[in-house]
Amino acid sequence: MTDDVRMRGFARRQTVDQALAWLDAHLAPLPAEQVGLAAAAGRVLAAAVQSGVDVPGFDRATMDGYAVVADSTEGATPYNSLPLDVVGEALPGRPFDGSLARGQAVRIMTGAPIPRGCDAVLPAELASDEVRALAAVSPGKHVGRRGEDIARGTMVLPIGRRLRPQDLGVLSSIGVSEVAAIRRPRVRLIVTGNELLPAGSVPHGSCIADANGPMLAALVERDGGLVDFPGIVRDETEPLLAALRAPADLAIVSGGSSVGVEDLAPSLVARHGELAVHGIAMRPSSPTGLGRIEGRLVFLLPGNPVSCLCAYDFFAGRAVRALGGLARDWPYPRRRGRLARKLSSQIGRLDYARVRLVDGEVEPLAIAGASVLSSTTRADGFVVVPADSEGFAAGADVDVWLYA
Amino acid sequence: MTDDVRMRGFARRQTVDQALAWLDAHLAPLPAEQVGLAAAAGRVLAAAVQSGVDVPGFDRATMDGYAVVADSTEGATPYNSLPLDVVGEALPGRPFDGSLARGQAVRIMTGAPIPRGCDAVLPAELASDEVRALAAVSPGKHVGRRGEDIARGTMVLPIGRRLRPQDLGVLSSIGVSEVAAIRRPRVRLIVTGNELLPAGSVPHGSCIADANGPMLAALVERDGGLVDFPGIVRDETEPLLAALRAPADLAIVSGGSSVGVEDLAPSLVARHGELAVHGIAMRPSSPTGLGRIEGRLVFLLPGNPVSCLCAYDFFAGRAVRALGGLARDWPYPRRRGRLARKLSSQIGRLDYARVRLVDGEVEPLAIAGASVLSSTTRADGFVVVPADSEGFAAGADVDVWLYA
Repeated sequence: MTDDVRMRGFARRQTVDQALAWLDAHLAPLPAEQVGLAAAAGRVLAAAVQSGVDVPGFDRATMDGYAVVADSTEGATPYNSLPLDVVGEALPGRPFDGSLARGQAVRIMTGAPIPRGCDAVLPAELASDEVRALAAVSPGKHVGRRGEDIARGTMVLPIGRRLRPQDLGVLSSIGVSEVAAIRRPRVRLIVTGNELLPAGSVPHGSCIADANGPMLAALVERDGGLVDFPGIVRDETEPLLAALRAPADLAIVSGGSSVGVEDLAPSLVARHGELAVHGIAMRPSSPTGLGRIEGRLVFLLPGNPVSCLCAYDFFAGRAVRALGGLARDWPYPRRRGRLARKLSSQIGRLDYARVRLVDGEVEPLAIAGASVLSSTTRADGFVVVPADSEGFAAGADVDVWLYA
Repeated sequence: MTDDVRMRGFARRQTVDQALAWLDAHLAPLPAEQVGLAAAAGRVLAAAVQSGVDVPGFDRATMDGYAVVADSTEGATPYNSLPLDVVGEALPGRPFDGSLARGQAVRIMTGAPIPRGCDAVLPAELASDEVRALAAVSPGKHVGRRGEDIARGTMVLPIGRRLRPQDLGVLSSIGVSEVAAIRRPRVRLIVTGNELLPAGSVPHGSCIADANGPMLAALVERDGGLVDFPGIVRDETEPLLAALRAPADLAIVSGGSSVGVEDLAPSLVARHGELAVHGIAMRPSSPTGLGRIEGRLVFLLPGNPVSCLCAYDFFAGRAVRALGGLARDWPYPRRRGRLARKLSSQIGRLDYARVRLVDGEVEPLAIAGASVLSSTTRADGFVVVPADSEGFAAGADVDVWLYA
């Protein structure tokens, strides 16, 4: 055992609120990049989009029928049908190339441009087979006016918008082929632990397979980040420091975040950057650290998989979302529910309690240790017990954050 | 104009419920495929996963401290500290290779295997610097038992589970490198319309840019499908039929689904397959068609972008999700809200009303035509007025499905 063994507690444990305050002060969306429409779903606009065109770009039929001069149908009824002289047809993309006078008509399909001289569409069902008007139409009837959907100059989508499928449709319809979107954060995953085998390995002897790497990669992708995870890093100064310094927008270290003999990461961050938070009054995840190195945020997450998930949810995920321009809040749906059993906690410490929903009630999972990752797969979600609370009584209404 | 012009209504308009009944009878999850862990997030398990190993695979320390024979600490207090003979160390992945007797101890880190002969861990803070026990520990104290997280043979994840990030962690920890997942449906997008320019083009003359292609592609991807969209298809028999017959799990046709002159798709489906539903009592989207061709489902969606979105939401999206093993229900969050204004509808027809949330109230958008795609970007979501309802009065509580 080396001389620098320090088996001591955390120098100064901070509250979750203090840790979040430090974190929020260091979060800002990344710069913009141009993104093609086909890849823009879910991306966040870095600038509002104004339309440079009218949509539709021309007056068009909103019914199948006959484009007419409205005036020529005046007084038409089934008993006094009026003749129409059909001089051509207008289809979407194939307009009628001429001008109409009173008494003339052009057979027209929905979406086709209204021919010059016309100002209304007589619906097909209001014309006889011999093409006589059976009813009058007023000017403008069944005509979609140029610009009625989107007028040129209109702000179509605001800055900060997370693009929905239909937004891509609108962007396409105004001739936009790419947008300025907040860049997706590149997240370096640094999974440490000399006992770890790469994910997908069968555990053997005293070695265990890496659970946090695949979990964190999926979490980061869910939150819009781009994962850079070149493999497990040995618990040694040189490889760990190199990984912390690798190009990225933020770094997430899993394991080696405590104060034990092999916990190099906190001291490296403190020495080569700033270790702003180390030790947080919460359960699990108390050995979490937050800091910066070479200008980028570093999250030191406990190697224990449940603590790792919880600390990601509270801190790292928030940063991934914020850098990418997304809402900082949890992406989990929230539901109110009645507690089936008492949920105890300790004053001064926030608790992240895994729960199941059973017959509409909220059942805290009875869990021996924080290391039981299967508790998060058996759970439907979690309840947060704030630091100033001793917990909730059976029957209390609580907020449940649903994993699914 | 050709002779086969048929400007008539739909032969038999069906209700939304009838259309869904036909659809649901033709939906079943696709077969399984093997998927590597790194690509498995969000995928749906085609078979339950049982653990072939114990997790942890060995008894391990759950605290930093000293592995001991519990018995040797009996009676220890700060005033009656008992000496321990430290004979080595155990680290995660680096076990102590020997057996301990009473009075001996091994310095141990959280996660390290408990040496042979030991049955407890004395936490570091209960030992003096000279390594004397300051308290007694009982057998099993601070020891995580082999299999305590997951016992070999346990069903870890059920069939049908949509894999969460933490599920990947659990799978990795039991040595699983790939899972049997329901195959993602390959969805052929067939966007028709001779007036259409490819997405990203600036609209000009009587041509408009394709809004539905990019929107549908994003919707299908959201719902877990794989998009095959080779470009706009001309409104002609040969290319359309070839597209309908191209390899896919389902086909979505946008445009040409009505009963007008250029609406080839319905007659092609009827002639070469089965056109089970054509015309649905809903607004928008009444010209929607459902059928099959060469054994695969075909969705005929109106070219009008709002109708296209609505018909996708009601029918095509449901099929994409179901084929991929996901829940058939909408992926939109639902919220209750008070209607700010009356929302009228017509008995016998289901309405899909775009709404905004303003100061917590639900405001129906005043929209001239169904063709106004920008209404779906201004909207926060939609309210469904069932066919048997005349609508909702101002102040009524309604369910809002949120787009975001």
